[in-house]
Amino acid sequence: MAVVEDSKGKIHTVAGVRLAAVESGIRYANRLDLVLVEMAAQSTVAGVFTQNAFCAAPVKLAKDHLQQTASRYFVINTGNANAGTGESGEAAALRCCQEVAELTAVDPQTVLPFSTGVIGEALPVGKILGGIPEAHRQLSELAWLEAAQGIMTTDTRPKLASRQIEIDGKPVTITGFAKGAGMLKPNMATMLGFIFTDAQIDDVSLADFLSLAVAQSFNRVTVDGDTSTNDSCMLVATAKSGVKIDSSRDKPAFRAALVAVFTELATGLIRDAEGASKFITITVSNGATVGECLAVAYTVAESPLVKTAFFASDPNWGRILAAVGRAGIENLDINLLTITLGDTRLVSGGVLDKSYTEEKGQAEMDQQEISIEIDLARGDKCETVWTSDLSHDYVRINSDYRS
Amino acid sequence: MAVVEDSKGKIHTVAGVRLAAVESGIRYANRLDLVLVEMAAQSTVAGVFTQNAFCAAPVKLAKDHLQQTASRYFVINTGNANAGTGESGEAAALRCCQEVAELTAVDPQTVLPFSTGVIGEALPVGKILGGIPEAHRQLSELAWLEAAQGIMTTDTRPKLASRQIEIDGKPVTITGFAKGAGMLKPNMATMLGFIFTDAQIDDVSLADFLSLAVAQSFNRVTVDGDTSTNDSCMLVATAKSGVKIDSSRDKPAFRAALVAVFTELATGLIRDAEGASKFITITVSNGATVGECLAVAYTVAESPLVKTAFFASDPNWGRILAAVGRAGIENLDINLLTITLGDTRLVSGGVLDKSYTEEKGQAEMDQQEISIEIDLARGDKCETVWTSDLSHDYVRINSDYRS
Repeated sequence: MAVVEDSKGKIHTVAGVRLAAVESGIRYANRLDLVLVEMAAQSTVAGVFTQNAFCAAPVKLAKDHLQQTASRYFVINTGNANAGTGESGEAAALRCCQEVAELTAVDPQTVLPFSTGVIGEALPVGKILGGIPEAHRQLSELAWLEAAQGIMTTDTRPKLASRQIEIDGKPVTITGFAKGAGMLKPNMATMLGFIFTDAQIDDVSLADFLSLAVAQSFNRVTVDGDTSTNDSCMLVATAKSGVKIDSSRDKPAFRAALVAVFTELATGLIRDAEGASKFITITVSNGATVGECLAVAYTVAESPLVKTAFFASDPNWGRILAAVGRAGIENLDINLLTITLGDTRLVSGGVLDKSYTEEKGQAEMDQQEISIEIDLARGDKCETVWTSDLSHDYVRINSDYRS
Repeated sequence: MAVVEDSKGKIHTVAGVRLAAVESGIRYANRLDLVLVEMAAQSTVAGVFTQNAFCAAPVKLAKDHLQQTASRYFVINTGNANAGTGESGEAAALRCCQEVAELTAVDPQTVLPFSTGVIGEALPVGKILGGIPEAHRQLSELAWLEAAQGIMTTDTRPKLASRQIEIDGKPVTITGFAKGAGMLKPNMATMLGFIFTDAQIDDVSLADFLSLAVAQSFNRVTVDGDTSTNDSCMLVATAKSGVKIDSSRDKPAFRAALVAVFTELATGLIRDAEGASKFITITVSNGATVGECLAVAYTVAESPLVKTAFFASDPNWGRILAAVGRAGIENLDINLLTITLGDTRLVSGGVLDKSYTEEKGQAEMDQQEISIEIDLARGDKCETVWTSDLSHDYVRINSDYRS
């Protein structure tokens, strides 16, 4: 079960990036589970990583390698998160980097490892080392779909997004892919996201662009409030387009295209969230602070009672109201509160709107894409969060996951 | 589905308390849905109420009446929460109090109203007024089970607890009942709890006893993290035993019996939580502060991934570890962390314990009652929270609730 996506545009290749995905049998046979990405020399690379105190071995190593030198390769496996594995887990991740480095004659520190899958089991290093030479042979400018497929776990489909714009008369491309369907409330990064552009962007500006884009996309989605131990999001600029982007010069066209790619990927994760039958956009407007807008939005988005009501297509506005009320907003005046479901005014002045009928509410709830706007009427801040419903399939998927 | 309880002891009547439950047809026919409780004159009464900003009309009125004068009656209905109903909801609750007051020749302010059920629909005052005279006729010292049944909503069984102790050579009784199975994370009070003693306790001491007992019972349970708009917990002392309890003199026997009644009721709610197939005790030990112990305990207790793993009887310790890691504890040293599942050491020094086997973990998880201890090794504080699992039945119950 998943919320059907809007049709996607063309996926543009990015000059300076080659990819490959192979079946190395890490957890399942006949499944793409190992991805290798090569970035041209002189590429700049920025990354954001999970805030979970239990960050996984590959996350530690990727952060460390990224600080030390310019990155040339990403090696990504599914089926095993290499998390909660201690020092032997770090050694295993490093061994994978070394294998790539030997094959490609680069320094091991230019290789960043990423893992996703079950937590707490030893990484099957032998299988990954066995797959790396084949992945290296297959590196191609075209293998974007295969790479997006190769990082999937409980995802039911690959998430790819691409934009091409013109700057100074030259085409500039941004293309990326991501994965994640559960244990998904990224905090500075999603489960795994890799976005590439052929623009030329210096390290500092690239990190700025990444922060800005993540804040409006991956950091605004939640499935179940559970932050992964392996969340990582990488932004790479290969400079091959010959177009230099300087964030201080403010290139609104580039920024808009970048945010569009990030948002398409982030909302793509929610559309394909574990057990999702609804795609829900929650906007909290006129809050006093960004923090309180997000507190209300996330409390509603993560309420099991709100999420089961969405699954049931039940316009149970009392559950939304109860969630707003427990969000911890000081001195919230409920008599000013307005809640709108799609085009239907649900709550005015803290009570059911006089024009509301169950038929109108039901018609809104029957949609696959639902928007809620909660107007706090106490400031001028506005934030949007995307989430999914809580369905029988969510429970089924997460009670079957290890079996 | 519910976790089977231990056998309960005798339910002792409380001198000075009479109760009745009748069928007034508020939402369903042939169902006890209206409860009247009479307390003897000179009883002292203390209450704690929901922290939800959207507190329901009866909660507002009960708080107001309690402040103004000594209470003599509780009038409690199920089937309708009278929440999100604005001024007309307050008028409806007051009308119910007035009806009791007229029948019993007391001041309306001595009557406290309580409601539980669907949020946002108008209280069917006519049906309640129709039932009150019959409830008044039926008032009895014996009707404890009927009262406990009469406040049930999605509960599958009544929750009653009772203790009798001897103080100064005289018997002192504490008996109470409670309800709540979902939208259950009380904050200063549970959904509805009513506890009575025949001890003589002054108002200030009674409020102290209530705070103390609630802190160790109703404020340590969570089903889904959703705090109700109607949570209320009342403690009544009728003085009929002739035994005076003064908290400053510290009556440890009374305090222990009181906490035992509260804890039996609070854990009873969790055993009967919506869809519960497991009863889970989460203890966080050796934290630096009570707050961080509770933050870790609640993050684990409310993680949908941990809860579905419990439902599946899956010793998926990685999910517990990931939840601990996102609990927001500053400078948590995961290398000191120990996690024990029942009698089985799961995690030592932040990684899987060497003695752990899947068979041992599975044997623990197959139990209906499961305990987890998370040792943070950074202080001397310890807190326990009780919760349930996340099952197909939870989703079914909460996607069917209004239909």
